Amino acid sequence: MIARYTELIEHEIRTLNLPSQPDNLYSPIGYFLGLGGKRMRPVMCLMTAEMYGNMEQAIGAAMGIELFHNFTLIHDDIMDDAPLRRNMPTIHSKWNRDVAILSGDTTFVLAMQQVLSSQNEYLPHLLKVFLKTAAEVCEGQQMDMDFQLKEQITAAEYLEMIRLKTAVLLGCSMKMGAIAAGAPVEEAVKCYHFGESLGLAFQMRDDYLDLFGNPEIFGKTQGGDILAGKKTLMVIHAFQKCNSKDAEILKAALYDKSMPDEQRIENAKKIIKDCGSDVYLHHEIDKNVETTFRVLNEINADNKVLENLRALTNQLLTREA
Amino acid sequence: MIARYTELIEHEIRTLNLPSQPDNLYSPIGYFLGLGGKRMRPVMCLMTAEMYGNMEQAIGAAMGIELFHNFTLIHDDIMDDAPLRRNMPTIHSKWNRDVAILSGDTTFVLAMQQVLSSQNEYLPHLLKVFLKTAAEVCEGQQMDMDFQLKEQITAAEYLEMIRLKTAVLLGCSMKMGAIAAGAPVEEAVKCYHFGESLGLAFQMRDDYLDLFGNPEIFGKTQGGDILAGKKTLMVIHAFQKCNSKDAEILKAALYDKSMPDEQRIENAKKIIKDCGSDVYLHHEIDKNVETTFRVLNEINADNKVLENLRALTNQLLTREA
Repeated sequence: MIARYTELIEHEIRTLNLPSQPDNLYSPIGYFLGLGGKRMRPVMCLMTAEMYGNMEQAIGAAMGIELFHNFTLIHDDIMDDAPLRRNMPTIHSKWNRDVAILSGDTTFVLAMQQVLSSQNEYLPHLLKVFLKTAAEVCEGQQMDMDFQLKEQITAAEYLEMIRLKTAVLLGCSMKMGAIAAGAPVEEAVKCYHFGESLGLAFQMRDDYLDLFGNPEIFGKTQGGDILAGKKTLMVIHAFQKCNSKDAEILKAALYDKSMPDEQRIENAKKIIKDCGSDVYLHHEIDKNVETTFRVLNEINADNKVLENLRALTNQLLTREA
Repeated sequence: MIARYTELIEHEIRTLNLPSQPDNLYSPIGYFLGLGGKRMRPVMCLMTAEMYGNMEQAIGAAMGIELFHNFTLIHDDIMDDAPLRRNMPTIHSKWNRDVAILSGDTTFVLAMQQVLSSQNEYLPHLLKVFLKTAAEVCEGQQMDMDFQLKEQITAAEYLEMIRLKTAVLLGCSMKMGAIAAGAPVEEAVKCYHFGESLGLAFQMRDDYLDLFGNPEIFGKTQGGDILAGKKTLMVIHAFQKCNSKDAEILKAALYDKSMPDEQRIENAKKIIKDCGSDVYLHHEIDKNVETTFRVLNEINADNKVLENLRALTNQLLTREA
């Protein structure tokens, strides 16, 4: 059901025909694009366009979004000093920092070229939505970095950060799909709203799985966010609820690199459970899931494709990996 | 004469109205854009558009090019570990590496948004030319980095590198100005060719001034290219002409960091002079200057503005700073 869209995207990526030279510029890009991933964003873009009767017109937009997403991952990996991405070496660790900066930049150029390849009457609108989102994703990443150095983060600040860093690109994927297919403006707006709510719920679930997921299924080291000192919604809630002694333990879990990783993670998990912060998070997720499905029900489009979208949404929101 | 265009660009930069938050994202961008520079590229873009009777239509393109140029400088400064840009701290040294990566990325987004603001019938063509050039500039930068690690570079390889890294953006500035003003295709092609030749001559003159210019006028430390191990056309020529003993001395001048800087520069200058490599470089510059003026004479446009362009060209090609 989803495979049809994924295969189309994988085909487009395989036939991108990147130049061969300079090898140190284009090999890293080909390598990174080949690492795979769920291709969730372009799939949602294509599905939305199909929902409004014209999938073909959205291929450029879908590819542009996927390439843009990869560009952000390449640069985020440098900023996070991440050695691995999808269990394979990141570009900066396989090549070096400068290659990663520049191949990231070039991936962004390629992303824009893909959007531009959708030479239809909606091009200016597509580009406007795309670039607004691109700026917002950068803003979200800067907030994420700022928050790592800031002691106090409110839940509202955290939600705004993940909205910008993650959710708006899902909204953009849907909206660009709608625009490319010639959907009415009010439908494009609903699609954006749907994608944004889904993105928020998706990211919060990701935060939960990072700490409480089965690492063998989830595919990431458990507790990575705690070890990176990230103050997710659960941590923010726990700090508000716990006593001063537990606050010290939680602080140490986030920042004390002299403590064994396992102990930091166990301490954080215990305090979060004790404070009911995992329950609080699920409550917040549920609110966004509710919004997501409410907006989904308001969308006026091809029913058969809508059912595909509903199935994908359920899949994304109940995923363990 | 040039001031009218420069003032227009400075005004546009001052009134960009960057968002205030996140401060760590937008303050560096405002800071960097405020460092100034000759604004040569947007001036040439505006001048070209005026030459074809419609300067107003090219403001978005001119600003897009200037912002793109600044984006490349921000990222190049990271790659070169450069502490200063226009005698002021670079973004990565005033803030940090991650801020420089991300504010660079965002400057590229802003550049695209500026081009997009030229909402006229030529937008797809403008974007196509702009993005092709953007990819080429990245390719040129990668070649430049590759060449620093490669022992043997041919003159042809070096020329292709500076063509991509520097010259094509001048060609693009002129071509986008022509396109935005609605000039015929063959005129836009001539403008590109003109800008590209001028860019080559300009960069080669820059190489000369880096080693033999008056540092008080040129504003950069003398011999910076030698100390950075850059094999410019003069160095390539000298390696071909000199005996094996001088080749060793020249190699040490490029790479031996244990030797005092002054001595490295003096050694390189002497060998380059002895081999006539400075004369060779001037011969190569002259060839491109000739092409530049030949193409300039073929351009069919408003004569008064053409005279301004001729004056600017002379100024750029005889500059000491």
